[in-house]
Amino acid sequence: MPRPAKHVFVCVQSRPPGHPRGSCGAKGCQAVLDELLSQSQSRELAAQGIQVTGTGCLDPCDSGPNLLIYPEGVMYGGLKKEDVAEIIDSHLLGGKPVERLLVPSEIW
Amino acid sequence: MPRPAKHVFVCVQSRPPGHPRGSCGAKGCQAVLDELLSQSQSRELAAQGIQVTGTGCLDPCDSGPNLLIYPEGVMYGGLKKEDVAEIIDSHLLGGKPVERLLVPSEIW
Repeated sequence: MPRPAKHVFVCVQSRPPGHPRGSCGAKGCQAVLDELLSQSQSRELAAQGIQVTGTGCLDPCDSGPNLLIYPEGVMYGGLKKEDVAEIIDSHLLGGKPVERLLVPSEIW
Repeated sequence: MPRPAKHVFVCVQSRPPGHPRGSCGAKGCQAVLDELLSQSQSRELAAQGIQVTGTGCLDPCDSGPNLLIYPEGVMYGGLKKEDVAEIIDSHLLGGKPVERLLVPSEIW
């Protein structure tokens, strides 16, 4: 695909059980990414300029599962797969961030 | 770290030998990421608002190893670890993209 209008990065970092930082992996990030990829395919989001990429650690592990959207640099945290549709509809397609899911401004 | 001024994403996708798409992994991306992380630490880039994250596939596998910088959405390709210092000095700290390393505009 050409340069996307919105590039969505989803942390898929895992760490061993008991690791002091925890991880988005331990908090269910894979289900979030899977849901996003599934909806991306069924709703043809790539053709609408939306790209999805899994990443290593994005930094604020405590607030995971984390999802980061560029170019605007907006980070969502504490996500469940049920939140994905709202992020697509409101933010990615509608241009309106989902306030209730934003990582607190003191963290990001 | 707080929200970075520059967020550098380095593809670390690997695929099995002989895979038709190839991969940044097969082309030496880990050496690029390792060099970037090493210089990031020694030059204290995080304190200057520069964050580095490894990612899955960024899409244009043929042009890898790929490195993508947001918020500007500039992608570099065909990188070697020897190119990392120039990207740091010219682009990340100097604000001037390194033209010779850019992925062609028809690809990204």
